[in-house]
Formats: sequence, structure tokens, C-alpha cells
Amino acid sequence: MKIIGVDPGYAIVGVGVIDYRNNHFTTLDYGAITTPADMPFDRRLKTIYEDFTAILQMHKPDAIAVERLYFTNNQKTGIDVAQARGVILLAAAQFDVPCFEYTPLQVKLAVTGYGKAVKKQVMEMTTRILHLCEVPKPDDVADALAIAVCHAHTAPALARQAAMQSKR
Amino acid sequence: MKIIGVDPGYAIVGVGVIDYRNNHFTTLDYGAITTPADMPFDRRLKTIYEDFTAILQMHKPDAIAVERLYFTNNQKTGIDVAQARGVILLAAAQFDVPCFEYTPLQVKLAVTGYGKAVKKQVMEMTTRILHLCEVPKPDDVADALAIAVCHAHTAPALARQAAMQSKR
Repeated sequence: MKIIGVDPGYAIVGVGVIDYRNNHFTTLDYGAITTPADMPFDRRLKTIYEDFTAILQMHKPDAIAVERLYFTNNQKTGIDVAQARGVILLAAAQFDVPCFEYTPLQVKLAVTGYGKAVKKQVMEMTTRILHLCEVPKPDDVADALAIAVCHAHTAPALARQAAMQSKR
Repeated sequence: MKIIGVDPGYAIVGVGVIDYRNNHFTTLDYGAITTPADMPFDRRLKTIYEDFTAILQMHKPDAIAVERLYFTNNQKTGIDVAQARGVILLAAAQFDVPCFEYTPLQVKLAVTGYGKAVKKQVMEMTTRILHLCEVPKPDDVADALAIAVCHAHTAPALARQAAMQSKR
């Protein structure tokens, strides 16, 4: 199962592409889509859409896993991250790839087995699971890979749930 | 100057197309893009994107005016409206149409000349300015037309400002 994990944003979109087969992980690609702060916002969305579409075209994933959004302090930033997340979901829908969303707590639990794990622990465990030599930079990329790992660990349970529901 | 006003949303997107020339308004088209509640969210975004793209293709506007977002009570709804607004801005950028955003207060002031006008007054004034027989339904459509009128009234001042800045 080929999974693209996405840490949504408008300045940096973290992207991680992994394959999970027979309980083994292969890391296929990872990096960040970035847009400059002085670019008009709608152009930044266009760049994100085009770059993410190119990634979908290249990797043809079976699933996309995206971090769920919460708004806390900065409302303006939150709105702009959500707008960028919208174009990522749009690209996924256009390629007919199912999207799954996970909270930071779900990612922590799935990757480390421990809901109170700190960010550093999640990143280090992700690096180990994916057989990487060091924690990918920037953090958004490591987060995207962690979300992809989270989906790999969660998808079998989701599939069992769906199968049980369809039998009822 | 042909303007498309947009009241963003994910269940209903209000759209109003007007032409403003020699201080005279012509209403070209108005209506709502709607998506069913039981459709997966990414598919709803795809529908909004495709329908809005078709409107841009048909009308080839000079400008798009969109309501600015604020989040108040329901965070989940706010995030989803912002995601839908993202795909609208994306479509505008793909057609190379400049986007302008206005707050509800700016719309009230531009349409009625009175910042404390209630919604009903804004709708009735919009209807009169655009030579319509009755207030368009649903409210999202009337709001979209009001935003378009706001941009028509504001654009000349914006152009003067830009010209002055370029001379400095």
C-alpha cells in the first residue's frame, strides 16, 4: 500500500511517500513544497496545487493521510492553512485517491504507542521505522512521514471495521 | 468591468456576476453552487471547483471579490468554509483573475453608505442597485451580489491608490 502523508501549510507543505507491505516499510520520497512569503496568496495556492498534483501523478498512491486542523492562537494563519489544505484535498479527489485525516494524538499513539510522547520521540521513532539515517528536515517533512506511518498502522483496522459494517 | 462576487461556503457557495460600466450596473448571472451533506468532503470540494471553473470559463471576469473569513463559534464549520474558499481562490489564480477580499463592514459601507446597516437593508439596496425585481434567494446569492457591488464601488479608489504608489 503506497501512502502519501501530508503536513498541510501554505509556506511549507510537508510530504512523505512510503510503501507498506508485509509489515515492512519502504521510504520512497520525501520533501517540502514551499512558497515565498511575497507571492500573492492565490498564487501560493496554485503552486501548492500544481506541485502536489505532480507528486500524485508520479507516485499514484493508494491513500493520502493528512493532519487534522485545529485553530488555536492565530486565526489568520489557521484560515490560510485551511485554504491550502482545501487545494490538497481537491487534488486528491481529482486523482480519486481516498483521504484520511488524523489528529496529532492519533499519530503519536500509532507511531510510538504512547499518547504523551513528545515531538522529538515521534520524529525519532518515525526515522527508525522508515530506516532513515537521520530525522528529515524541516519538521513538516518528518511530520508528514509520521502521518503516513500512522495511516499504515491504522488502515488494517479501518478495513476490518468497514468489512464488519458491510456484513451487518 | 465584469466582476464575480462570491460568498464562500461548502454546502452553498453564493455567486453573482455583474458588469459595471459608466456608473451603470448590469446583472449578468447569479445563483448558488450547492453540494449534498452526504457527499465526502473532498468530493464536495471537487464539485465546487468544477462548477466555479465553469462559471469563470463562461463569464471571463476582470475581477473576483470574495468575503473575508472570520471564525467565531463553530471551528469545524470555519475550517471547512476556509478549505472551500481555497479551491475558489485556486480556480481564480488558474484563470489569472485578480482576487479582492472584503469584510462584511466594507460591504455594508460600500452598498448602503452606512456601517450599521442590517443585512436586510444591504440586500434591498443591492437589489435596487442591480435593477432586480426581488431579493435573490438564498441569502448567500444576495450576499455574493452585494460583494460584487462593493468591489465595483471600491475598485476605482484602489486603482487610484495603485497609480499614486507607482509614481512615488
